Amino acid sequence: MNNPSSHSAIISPIPARLLQLRSAMKLAGFDAYIIPSADPHLSEYLPERWQGRSYFSGFTGSVGTLIVTADFAGLWVDSRYWSQAEKELAPTGIQMMKIASAASISHIDWLTTTLQAGQSVGVDGEVLGLMTARILEQNLSAKAIHLKTNIDLLDGSWHDRPGLPASPIFEHLAPFATISRQEKLALVREQMRANGADQHFVSTVDDLAWIFNLRGSDVSYNPVFAGHALIGLNDARIFVAEGKVSAELEAILAQDNIKTLPYAEAARALASLPANSSVLIDPRRITLGFHQAIAANTRVLEAINPSVFIKSRKNSQEVDFVREAMEQDGAALCEFFSWLEDALGKEVITEISIDEKICAARARQPHFISPSFGTIAGFNGNGAMPHYRATPESHATIEGNGLLLIDSGGQYLNGTTDITRVVPVGTISDAQKRDFTLVLKGMINLSKAIFPRGTPSPMLDTLARAPIWAEGINYGHGTGHGVGYFLNVHEGPQSISAALAEPHTAMEPGMITSNEPGIYRPNQWGVRIENLLLTVPAITSEFGEYLQFESLTLCPIDTRCINIAMLRDDEITWLNDYHALVLQRLSPRVSGSALAWLQERTQAIKK
Amino acid sequence: MNNPSSHSAIISPIPARLLQLRSAMKLAGFDAYIIPSADPHLSEYLPERWQGRSYFSGFTGSVGTLIVTADFAGLWVDSRYWSQAEKELAPTGIQMMKIASAASISHIDWLTTTLQAGQSVGVDGEVLGLMTARILEQNLSAKAIHLKTNIDLLDGSWHDRPGLPASPIFEHLAPFATISRQEKLALVREQMRANGADQHFVSTVDDLAWIFNLRGSDVSYNPVFAGHALIGLNDARIFVAEGKVSAELEAILAQDNIKTLPYAEAARALASLPANSSVLIDPRRITLGFHQAIAANTRVLEAINPSVFIKSRKNSQEVDFVREAMEQDGAALCEFFSWLEDALGKEVITEISIDEKICAARARQPHFISPSFGTIAGFNGNGAMPHYRATPESHATIEGNGLLLIDSGGQYLNGTTDITRVVPVGTISDAQKRDFTLVLKGMINLSKAIFPRGTPSPMLDTLARAPIWAEGINYGHGTGHGVGYFLNVHEGPQSISAALAEPHTAMEPGMITSNEPGIYRPNQWGVRIENLLLTVPAITSEFGEYLQFESLTLCPIDTRCINIAMLRDDEITWLNDYHALVLQRLSPRVSGSALAWLQERTQAIKK
Repeated sequence: MNNPSSHSAIISPIPARLLQLRSAMKLAGFDAYIIPSADPHLSEYLPERWQGRSYFSGFTGSVGTLIVTADFAGLWVDSRYWSQAEKELAPTGIQMMKIASAASISHIDWLTTTLQAGQSVGVDGEVLGLMTARILEQNLSAKAIHLKTNIDLLDGSWHDRPGLPASPIFEHLAPFATISRQEKLALVREQMRANGADQHFVSTVDDLAWIFNLRGSDVSYNPVFAGHALIGLNDARIFVAEGKVSAELEAILAQDNIKTLPYAEAARALASLPANSSVLIDPRRITLGFHQAIAANTRVLEAINPSVFIKSRKNSQEVDFVREAMEQDGAALCEFFSWLEDALGKEVITEISIDEKICAARARQPHFISPSFGTIAGFNGNGAMPHYRATPESHATIEGNGLLLIDSGGQYLNGTTDITRVVPVGTISDAQKRDFTLVLKGMINLSKAIFPRGTPSPMLDTLARAPIWAEGINYGHGTGHGVGYFLNVHEGPQSISAALAEPHTAMEPGMITSNEPGIYRPNQWGVRIENLLLTVPAITSEFGEYLQFESLTLCPIDTRCINIAMLRDDEITWLNDYHALVLQRLSPRVSGSALAWLQERTQAIKK
Repeated sequence: MNNPSSHSAIISPIPARLLQLRSAMKLAGFDAYIIPSADPHLSEYLPERWQGRSYFSGFTGSVGTLIVTADFAGLWVDSRYWSQAEKELAPTGIQMMKIASAASISHIDWLTTTLQAGQSVGVDGEVLGLMTARILEQNLSAKAIHLKTNIDLLDGSWHDRPGLPASPIFEHLAPFATISRQEKLALVREQMRANGADQHFVSTVDDLAWIFNLRGSDVSYNPVFAGHALIGLNDARIFVAEGKVSAELEAILAQDNIKTLPYAEAARALASLPANSSVLIDPRRITLGFHQAIAANTRVLEAINPSVFIKSRKNSQEVDFVREAMEQDGAALCEFFSWLEDALGKEVITEISIDEKICAARARQPHFISPSFGTIAGFNGNGAMPHYRATPESHATIEGNGLLLIDSGGQYLNGTTDITRVVPVGTISDAQKRDFTLVLKGMINLSKAIFPRGTPSPMLDTLARAPIWAEGINYGHGTGHGVGYFLNVHEGPQSISAALAEPHTAMEPGMITSNEPGIYRPNQWGVRIENLLLTVPAITSEFGEYLQFESLTLCPIDTRCINIAMLRDDEITWLNDYHALVLQRLSPRVSGSALAWLQERTQAIKK
């Protein structure tokens, strides 16, 4: 049951927390304080210790920037979260500041136009990305506003702040780990040498997990652990909270000349490299704090972390494992969807029970570890919030007529999945079918793309949007993100989106990327259709190498939601071919009602 | 007649010039010297005084970077110029270094990997863009290589270097100048105030010409003059070579509180602003030299030149004038093409005589001033060089079979035109028709686009390329550039191309942009089809404002080159609608054989 008003009954603890923060700001002499959504690893999912933005604002979405002054508090948040932020900020007095995308720097513009020359802005340099810090510093100094980054005001104002995450670290083992730790270190060291570096500092948790074939569970959904690494040409040090590495694992790592040290030692180790060392860092993947820790006699070489590129291009063994994971995931979804269709109208189904059922279906598959993100099951108006999360206090029952959007995924030892489907409930309207068909056209247009190797991935974004734009409609999120291999469901460097921030976005063979256009009608319904795509060779001509996509995700797209008259012949052919593939690959893995459902939902359509 | 071997008979003066440069480098202590294609105004077309790259390399193309060391000389040049550079560099010993686009910084990568720590790179800071300088400095200093920018080695090594351009400045008058000088200054000052600036320094010649409603002829094709301006909140100073401004014009400018001063005074004036002034500069449109001239007690505010935005969005009076200019231009082209078709096989026609005929046809139109760039008339293999220029020594005769590509344009007091058409000569092959049709599909796909207001213009590039990419083909230049109003045929900020360098590329109503995809088969043929497009409103919905394009250019697209089977119904409809419009708009302006030709070439096609 949807009960959005339940929040307002609770007295918000936020004003009291802001009061505490403001007195700390006054003591420190700050006219404004920034709390970004960030930790020392610049992760997407933050361990509780670093959820200060959530603690001080009440906004629980994954991305947003809180700025507090003596008489103002605002949260800068992109369109994915406008509905959610509106609800969550209502009782706090904090103002929602709408931004076009997470990459926007309009909060900096706000600071430079609101503050006076000579005033001071504070932010904790230990959770501030170096690249972000440079943009902030540049903009503030142009207006003669000071930036102070050496104090973490949260420590003093956050009562009972959680400690470091402590869950144990485990190995990602062969056969699923297809490259040994030693080989991965050799690949990284090759790039270090090419850059003239004898040290490489890594803070990003997915890079760390990938390089060392280690995994953890310090956050939900991403199988990673909080830590840093300092990699030399012959040895490596990993800095993690004590107790996370067993004696046994420590011995295994020692065989590869890898030492584990306390988490807090990382900055000190970076500060005390031998004289004339040269250290490779990635300014988008290291904090200002660590950059400042580097000694003056150490040469700093800036480049993208070598592991970002290497891990983005899955090798053929990994791809084979992922294809199998996709079959497992598709089989689980056949079971789930056949249950759903059968149960609708017979039993009470809510957005919450959908989450439970879909996770249970995946959990029955081999090598399953966890969901790869919080299931988004949104019925009608809830589906219009791209990052909606049903809660026990506020969720809908699936009844009556409308569209049900389900975005979910799994972490398997042999791959990471992420899929969105929309299914009809009861009778759906022509307007709903039109939106579904437009999104499908965009999704097919991108799926069919052929493009030169090395095309910046943002250039492909338009292909998914063009059929939707043509009707005066758009969606406020990117079209596609990279996906890890039993790793983060969001990884770079590629990104099919208009955000042009990172220059290293060339599309290359072996990359796995989502394709997920959508249409959102606030308070009415939402449509999103998402497959994961593998980048593979297409044509080699006198004009060079051309690439195309293989659809990895295997699950029917509900043809009952399509207005067939709106599809061109080539679009119908694509859909029928896709469904034939889904049927062929999944039917050996399902039986009974799930098989019957699969056969029914993969039937070819025609005009 | 095509005679590409004629160059090799001439003894190149280049090695002797490089010898002179190298001894100057040795004296200055430079291990490498960079000569960019640049002047103090960062112009596209350089007055002779600043054509040092051409003087020292022999390469006459408009864009390229020369780097000279003690034992190496290389010219970094993008794919538009590979054929030309190959020919022109052959006798010089200078190596061609191929780059993907003019925005590439691979020459910097070359420097950082070739030079050793402690070595020095020299470049004249007075012709080095500030933004470029920062990227160069950042990359070199990361490898501990020094950058020296305070010496212009050309002065000493370039015998008989030309002086400052001296042609007179004239006014762009009403009714064609639709906004007065005083109003334009008010618009610029409004943006200065919004940025907190009391001064604004302008070096770019099209900004200068636009703001002051002045024009000149210091370079070919662009009606501009070399100069700088320093604009205060109440007065303005223009710095130009003496003798360029008549006493009469000086008096007119004085009425608007504008003073003209000698060219060389610009840096001194910028250096001696009143204490605590704040000056707005555009880091992409000012040189390092001028930035360094600014006094320490002057606050520097960096933003895009306000005039770049304002002039890119043509007002409705300007648009009306441009529509008329397009009719004039189209009428001239009808005369030209009807002559061409009639004369083919009857008289000797060369690429040179085509240039003469097309310029003569335009010159008969009212308000014509000059061509807007050097006509590109390329038959068969010559058409495969996107920036080909026929010369009296080396050009082809139009005979036999093949494709003739003609890219030309005019400067009129009421607008600037730029159009490319390809016409068949004799019998053309199926492969040629296929290429033509693919280019047409790309060009139509972009012409039909609907997109949200504010879409970064590079995102539209993919629309023109997708149908061409699908066949494993691509073209090595951007799809579209902004076009001025009786001003530069290339202007920003929008650019439909993958080069993502400038962040201010949002597509806005009133912008005029070219749409010119192509296919180039080296030594065989080239196809490019180009219209200018006006950005106009399309749809306003709950998702915001959507824009579309109005085709401004009026001239038949030769349907004899089309493989109709490759066109979709909606593409055929677009083409027939376009031809109906061309017929309707141009037929009142032509008569006799030109009218007959227009009627013949605008006939509808069908499958």
